[in-house]
Amino acid sequence: MAAVRIALLGCGNVGAEVVRLLGEQAGDLAARVGEPLELAGVAARRPARHPEVPAALLTTDAAGLVERPDVDVVIEVIGGIEPARTLLLTAMKAGKSVVTANKALLAEDGASLHAAARDNAVDLYYEASVAGAIPLLRPLRESLAGDRISRVVGIVNGTTNFVLSRMDATGAGFADALAEATALGYAEADPTADIDGFDAAAKAAILAALAFHTRVTAADVHREGIAGVTAADVAGAKAMGCTVKLLAICDRVTDESGSESIGVRVHPAMIPHSHPLAGVGDAFNAVFVEGEAAGQLMFYGQGAGGAPTASAVLGDLVAVARNRLTGARGAGESAYADLRVRTVGETPTRYHISLDVADRPGVLATVAHAFAAHDVSISAVRQEGRGDDATLVLVTHTAPDAALAATVEDLRRMPIVREVLSVMRVEGGE
Amino acid sequence: MAAVRIALLGCGNVGAEVVRLLGEQAGDLAARVGEPLELAGVAARRPARHPEVPAALLTTDAAGLVERPDVDVVIEVIGGIEPARTLLLTAMKAGKSVVTANKALLAEDGASLHAAARDNAVDLYYEASVAGAIPLLRPLRESLAGDRISRVVGIVNGTTNFVLSRMDATGAGFADALAEATALGYAEADPTADIDGFDAAAKAAILAALAFHTRVTAADVHREGIAGVTAADVAGAKAMGCTVKLLAICDRVTDESGSESIGVRVHPAMIPHSHPLAGVGDAFNAVFVEGEAAGQLMFYGQGAGGAPTASAVLGDLVAVARNRLTGARGAGESAYADLRVRTVGETPTRYHISLDVADRPGVLATVAHAFAAHDVSISAVRQEGRGDDATLVLVTHTAPDAALAATVEDLRRMPIVREVLSVMRVEGGE
Repeated sequence: MAAVRIALLGCGNVGAEVVRLLGEQAGDLAARVGEPLELAGVAARRPARHPEVPAALLTTDAAGLVERPDVDVVIEVIGGIEPARTLLLTAMKAGKSVVTANKALLAEDGASLHAAARDNAVDLYYEASVAGAIPLLRPLRESLAGDRISRVVGIVNGTTNFVLSRMDATGAGFADALAEATALGYAEADPTADIDGFDAAAKAAILAALAFHTRVTAADVHREGIAGVTAADVAGAKAMGCTVKLLAICDRVTDESGSESIGVRVHPAMIPHSHPLAGVGDAFNAVFVEGEAAGQLMFYGQGAGGAPTASAVLGDLVAVARNRLTGARGAGESAYADLRVRTVGETPTRYHISLDVADRPGVLATVAHAFAAHDVSISAVRQEGRGDDATLVLVTHTAPDAALAATVEDLRRMPIVREVLSVMRVEGGE
Repeated sequence: MAAVRIALLGCGNVGAEVVRLLGEQAGDLAARVGEPLELAGVAARRPARHPEVPAALLTTDAAGLVERPDVDVVIEVIGGIEPARTLLLTAMKAGKSVVTANKALLAEDGASLHAAARDNAVDLYYEASVAGAIPLLRPLRESLAGDRISRVVGIVNGTTNFVLSRMDATGAGFADALAEATALGYAEADPTADIDGFDAAAKAAILAALAFHTRVTAADVHREGIAGVTAADVAGAKAMGCTVKLLAICDRVTDESGSESIGVRVHPAMIPHSHPLAGVGDAFNAVFVEGEAAGQLMFYGQGAGGAPTASAVLGDLVAVARNRLTGARGAGESAYADLRVRTVGETPTRYHISLDVADRPGVLATVAHAFAAHDVSISAVRQEGRGDDATLVLVTHTAPDAALAATVEDLRRMPIVREVLSVMRVEGGE
């Protein structure tokens, strides 16, 4: 019997698990595909570091490997833009189908990859690029292909979810919680991509593109990280029956003229404890999807880690190998809707604002006037403490983000506002 | 441009939603498939009751419709074994691909349907048969195709989940909670299929077959309904930090000799409040999947209703129509593993048992001896009340269900046991 021959690019955490599972589950995989899956080569920067891989398979020449005539499918788990992009484009040009976990590349230049897959009549699968083992991309692009998705809201970065969960549980500040995450291996030595929201923004772009059949890149995503979230923000959220999460939010809005646009943003937000995402703790991921007919769906699981990510890679590999055998091809890019991507300024949001104010008559009237001037209505006001310690907490109704941001700017300039203590968006519950 | 022509069998809740969505989303569906989807005919028993369907499309002749040369795909939402089976077999023989929501038929005779699909080189899709709009079958058969699934535990029947949720929330007995469910439209006039677990058992058979690559029919599923669950059972669960749910449990076990078998069962069970399924309230469905590499995953959403079920039907329809256009076919039956299905007697479970006992010295020793005689170890014992009202509550460790059942039989015959008040299996937490 012939075999489907696989080139693996990258042999870190995920790559090593792919090698292990290809070996341990060879019998099952062959039965499911209809032909054995066989490793043709593994490209690694330092082959000597991978004694678990047969030496004959290891090579430092990734560029040569992806063009080898005895390779049918290329799995890429290197990450980053280059050399991954060039390797995958070369592989597809040489007629190989591709399975990749590379969210940064997909979000930066998915269009080129999809075009190469189309032009060379090969498959491009990337389930592992978002939320590890949680089946998300296939449900969005296939199971919900008969529905209109109105909203996708996800916790898609485990590191930041761990940090925020610890801040919520212990009252710790950001720096202490991050130090704990680093000590426990939940944060990398350089956690910038996670903490500043780059990782979540790439995933948001991929999810939005699939959900709304529109090309979306990382540059389209409004991005705010969690480095500015303070213990006071988290305590303020708690007082409201909420918790703070870093959310990737993709939504579709129809404006008064009937024209549709989408918004894609990543930022910390308060969500009520009753929201299904509020209970997603530690480094877990979960994504909430709303379809017009399907209603509310939630997908939950481990969003990262070698084995879960390898599980998603192998699921794609089985699909690609089956397609190859039957002469079929999976769905390509679907960008026919070509909806406009809104700026965050146009996006309807709600704010939770804490102010340190002078405790004297007329303060509330003056503050309320600043909101009214920007056409923002206030949903709730609460004063905490008295005298010099008075804190005024306001929660708005939904308004364009730009109007809310302008209101905060005005508040900062008002003499009776000593300090704007906290500004946090609120999701859900209205 | 040619169109994919669809015959719809059945025009109840789900069928009417399929008709509506095919109309409202015609543009999107055509863009996603690459060709328009067009209704060729709708078979209904009483055409006059469907003024929303163009009269020219309606027919009472389902058998004629499925063989019509201008039909490409048949959607079946009639339910039940006959005439659905004959209609679908006839349709496939005539070269039509099939999308069905019929869990009873799939669980009774999936093998014949799959064989017909294979022999006639057509597609058979049935995502809507389990848990409505929640994408479950495609993730199990595709996304997790590279993993080894060890366990699937689901709340897959909305009616029983609503009844048990009400009993938990209000302390009501089964009859009162069922009456409330009926009044609110959550239970049908004849709720037998739901209450006695037939509906959940059919879904369990479908899930187990996909998860374990083994042919499983409804007859293989051990089935207990919720009619015997009392307010005392629910209160007892609460006292343990648990709630009672009707669970569909599919698991894989490797015995001491290394040979594998699977168990498939539906019964009420206590689960700890910390379990992700414990919070699934009202008529919602959720399914928990454990993969060796993927870890724990959960899928949550609306398990029934016209629109959610229609969403799943249309997702399948898009896939089938795309396959037809590209000359591809979806995955067929995968039953290569052919694992033995265990009896419930062999299945490792845990019991929670409440006994009304005489309050005198030596009672516990006598009771404990009955457990030991069947090699069942006790995990916890608690006495509630004193004197004539004394209740002894015991929770066991895991043991074969047959040993636990035999222990309960012995207890019933013991003179010092006035009554066995409650027997309930416990899932999770050990």
